[in-house]
Amino acid sequence: MKAAMRILLTFFLVLPAIAHASDLRGTGSLGLVIERAAGSVLIVDFMARRTVGRVQGLGDLSHASAVFSPDQRYAYVFGRDGGLTKVDLLTASIARRVVQAGNAIGGAISDDGTLIAVSNYEPGGVRVFAADTLEPVGTIPAIGADGKSSKTVGLVDLPGRRFAFALYDAGEIWVADLSAPEALTVEKLTGVGKLPYDGNVTPNGRHYLAGLFGEDGVVHVDTWQAPLQARRILDRYGRGEEALPVYKMPHLEGWAAVGDRLLLPAVGRHELIAVDMRSFAEAGRVATHGQPVFAVARPDGRQVWVNFAHPKNDTIDVIDVQSMKLIHRFAPGPAVLHLEFTPRGNEVWISVRDANRIDIYDTATFTKKAEIAAEKPSGIFFTARSTRIGQ
Amino acid sequence: MKAAMRILLTFFLVLPAIAHASDLRGTGSLGLVIERAAGSVLIVDFMARRTVGRVQGLGDLSHASAVFSPDQRYAYVFGRDGGLTKVDLLTASIARRVVQAGNAIGGAISDDGTLIAVSNYEPGGVRVFAADTLEPVGTIPAIGADGKSSKTVGLVDLPGRRFAFALYDAGEIWVADLSAPEALTVEKLTGVGKLPYDGNVTPNGRHYLAGLFGEDGVVHVDTWQAPLQARRILDRYGRGEEALPVYKMPHLEGWAAVGDRLLLPAVGRHELIAVDMRSFAEAGRVATHGQPVFAVARPDGRQVWVNFAHPKNDTIDVIDVQSMKLIHRFAPGPAVLHLEFTPRGNEVWISVRDANRIDIYDTATFTKKAEIAAEKPSGIFFTARSTRIGQ
Repeated sequence: MKAAMRILLTFFLVLPAIAHASDLRGTGSLGLVIERAAGSVLIVDFMARRTVGRVQGLGDLSHASAVFSPDQRYAYVFGRDGGLTKVDLLTASIARRVVQAGNAIGGAISDDGTLIAVSNYEPGGVRVFAADTLEPVGTIPAIGADGKSSKTVGLVDLPGRRFAFALYDAGEIWVADLSAPEALTVEKLTGVGKLPYDGNVTPNGRHYLAGLFGEDGVVHVDTWQAPLQARRILDRYGRGEEALPVYKMPHLEGWAAVGDRLLLPAVGRHELIAVDMRSFAEAGRVATHGQPVFAVARPDGRQVWVNFAHPKNDTIDVIDVQSMKLIHRFAPGPAVLHLEFTPRGNEVWISVRDANRIDIYDTATFTKKAEIAAEKPSGIFFTARSTRIGQ
Repeated sequence: MKAAMRILLTFFLVLPAIAHASDLRGTGSLGLVIERAAGSVLIVDFMARRTVGRVQGLGDLSHASAVFSPDQRYAYVFGRDGGLTKVDLLTASIARRVVQAGNAIGGAISDDGTLIAVSNYEPGGVRVFAADTLEPVGTIPAIGADGKSSKTVGLVDLPGRRFAFALYDAGEIWVADLSAPEALTVEKLTGVGKLPYDGNVTPNGRHYLAGLFGEDGVVHVDTWQAPLQARRILDRYGRGEEALPVYKMPHLEGWAAVGDRLLLPAVGRHELIAVDMRSFAEAGRVATHGQPVFAVARPDGRQVWVNFAHPKNDTIDVIDVQSMKLIHRFAPGPAVLHLEFTPRGNEVWISVRDANRIDIYDTATFTKKAEIAAEKPSGIFFTARSTRIGQ
């Protein structure tokens, strides 16, 4: 095991900048690790538990995220500086790159893999690009009912070449239908609540939820209903009776869908909140080590792994979903920023930023299987995301 | 559209026997089509909607199925004659092949991608192979409580390097733990019912269900409980008050998990049966065109597509899950044997055996997008299956 780690580290030091084209390789076990400070990404292989390439020159990657083409050859990386970079995972190179806005916050790929949508802070709105060329296809200006342009957040794909997102400033949720991009239609829900700061959709693409920054609660939209309706749920979602200082707003892309429940990180509290997916009422709480940032379900939904905001961000809690009890707590190292399960959940990759390391754990035994060197790693994204609605 | 079809057909006629190694290609949109009569498989690409290769010499492929390596480079094809063939999707060639039994019925790959298990009729039991070399790793003789060797059916992977399967002759369900293959352990449930003929596990890998051929009902095992317990559900599963002749036993691998319900093909009746996944009690029925064979959920769970036994096997019914009503019925052509959705469900591939064709439909508009020529096609399997528990 130690020998294996030495081999991995040695490999990393002699890492070729570009993979050879003659290396035939399946892409199902590939992934990307964001190296935020360096503006680079590692290309990794979860089967081999090693790095296979590094791509540089992606700009400001703070809060960066990635989606994948259906063939899993390409990653689309959304940078904070408005950069949209198409990375070829097989040649470890940049296939295309555009700087499409001044300040952006993530994006999505349409269910047919042909459109990339990006959520922008500056100038606001959503821009849409052809996935193959990154040529612009359309713009959705986010002018709210207040007549002003709004930042957009929580952008996700929905079935039928649609996208859902929230307007931060205006307090709205929009669903855009791009089945005919030249004649796109938008269904708008206005006045849904103050300052929706993030949103996500359940794994089946049906229920869109947005967390509110300006109020204590969550907005729920059942996208199978026509016309759409926004409904407030979890009215004491976070703050509760005794508000704690909020160190970091939790990520809604880090919620855990397990069976017929969702486990959401509470805002500012040391808790996860369970939500019943039939009624969308609260169905219990679980105490955690700190303020949760990501609560991620193992793919079988039997465990939820949780990381935390500073100053408790060296630790992971593992919750057993059946009993809703903590079954394992451990400290991988300083600044645990993100975690990603292998597609069938046998292992999990954890970025330990301030140790410059990715740690790989067996999820059945909780033993460490390997370490991979990385420069201040943050987000980890495996290509299996391409198979998921709301990837 | 017609032009596109002509191009596809032309391409098929000049299909190279072997793809060039220099063709860099992501494997996320690849798949296999079983050409049963010819003993060959087509390698297809759902993004390009075309065939990219053909591999011959796989033996008797009646009732053949396939699973994929986690890197999605290799398919493991289980033939009826006991053949286990490892197909390299990138070079369109046979990487390894063993004839491991006299008569077999499908298999599974462990969650870590290292073990292939095959369910055998003759000599019975389950044999386990190393996924990389196809060297034998172990055998699980299926000697039931009656002391006799049994055929095995309904073999699926479970999290934690485990497999579940049913003993057809003995009427038992076993869960084998191969986390240490040299010291494998088996938990056995005896006397679960007469002649379990097929089994499957819910998408989260938790609930194993086996259909009974010798009795009217289904056996349910919650694999999260310890010790395991078998429970009878749906006691008038199929036959009901007025038994109809059964043209073909439905496939349990063809059930549809939608939200908190399962839709199962009824045995011998023109119906799907809905099962509540909290209580495992019946939650309604939907009338269908004929005796259902496969009932497959679109990945978002909003629709279920159903094909039928002879003589109604030219037709597909599409059921809307929210209303539990038929929303579309159409006849793709003679002998519709199987269907497979793209991973996010925007399109569906349908094998129309007696027209020597695969048809590709848009699932939002029900329009036909393309046709692909194939010799008597049966099963269609996309590599995205590698990301699923119980693939």
